Amino acid sequence: MKSLLVINTSPRTTRSYTRKLTGTFTDIWLKKYPGAFIVWRDLGLEHVPHVSENWIAGAFKPKELRSAEEHEALAKSDEYINELKKADIIVMGVPMYNYSFPSSLKAYLDQVLRVHETWELDRENIRDPYIGQLKNKKLYLLMSRGAQGYEKGGYNEHVNFQTTYLRATFKMMGIVDIHEISINGELLGGSSLAESIENSQLEIKRIVEDLNMVFENK
Amino acid sequence: MKSLLVINTSPRTTRSYTRKLTGTFTDIWLKKYPGAFIVWRDLGLEHVPHVSENWIAGAFKPKELRSAEEHEALAKSDEYINELKKADIIVMGVPMYNYSFPSSLKAYLDQVLRVHETWELDRENIRDPYIGQLKNKKLYLLMSRGAQGYEKGGYNEHVNFQTTYLRATFKMMGIVDIHEISINGELLGGSSLAESIENSQLEIKRIVEDLNMVFENK
Repeated sequence: MKSLLVINTSPRTTRSYTRKLTGTFTDIWLKKYPGAFIVWRDLGLEHVPHVSENWIAGAFKPKELRSAEEHEALAKSDEYINELKKADIIVMGVPMYNYSFPSSLKAYLDQVLRVHETWELDRENIRDPYIGQLKNKKLYLLMSRGAQGYEKGGYNEHVNFQTTYLRATFKMMGIVDIHEISINGELLGGSSLAESIENSQLEIKRIVEDLNMVFENK
Repeated sequence: MKSLLVINTSPRTTRSYTRKLTGTFTDIWLKKYPGAFIVWRDLGLEHVPHVSENWIAGAFKPKELRSAEEHEALAKSDEYINELKKADIIVMGVPMYNYSFPSSLKAYLDQVLRVHETWELDRENIRDPYIGQLKNKKLYLLMSRGAQGYEKGGYNEHVNFQTTYLRATFKMMGIVDIHEISINGELLGGSSLAESIENSQLEIKRIVEDLNMVFENK
């Protein structure tokens, strides 16, 4: 049985569209695999610490040389990274905030992008120096955006700092099997929003069913 | 006399290159204008809160309808925005972290990008709906990057989420007079780093001198 990690990043609770999408994903998952174990991580509600000077000093030296303060500064990073390493499938609910995503998710990325843990540096290849250490993982980005046109060729493509940045940073860690599902036009409302919500629900349903088939064939 | 706001964002103290750059800027400034008043904001050392559900609920309703919890959630945002509004010149020290900048600066941007405060929405213009409310301000981005080639045409241009994102979000607020000075190749070291540091120091010196002339001509 594959291990599923669900990460919510919206600070909104009941009014969040992305929480509805991650909920749809897990509902269908649990119908297929009753009693399946799911790990939930809520970056929207917990306080995700920013990287500190002790964090940096500790991360760049061997474990046995770290001070007590450095170990403490890295504790949350250790926790997040262990969770990521154990997951086969990562489902992430990501609202667009100011063309990207909430700062708690940036803080999380700064915590998990860590030398000797999620990436190694190849000094011989300065044009593409990161060797990702996380292998065989699928990432599903379940997103919501106030406006439209952020996809390739769309009129807002140049200000899509949401998927472009997430793809670049997950690639640093070795995660390149990334799927995007998005509700667009949350602020515009009306029938195009309703249609966008319905399409994303259907797409999630199809994806979870396809995933099942992959498992059953293995 | 123009009002100067200096924002440091590096969690590093003595080992920070960007703090050296902001220090160079203010040293030259104070030599020209002894006793000038400078406002310092340290996002690298203070804890910058992430936006919460109360923050969002409060920001999108009139002040007099906000609950006590919503006022409290917006207190830091009020403080940051008032500081920004008062500044004529903003000098920001910004290290590159994971192709962008530390999460504390993203948290700050989420705090200051606020409806009816720094932007208004033009619903008739959905392709470019933000009307920036901050006028006549200059922004100097004093940066440091581990690698090289992030400039236009460079081999790392596609992963420059530092200046591209800062330009997009400051534009939402009406700040478009933005200048970039960067130390490149911090991790590579050697003579190219030494040269990059020296060039940025000289450029800052030239800029502050030019700024003086503008002031004296006014």
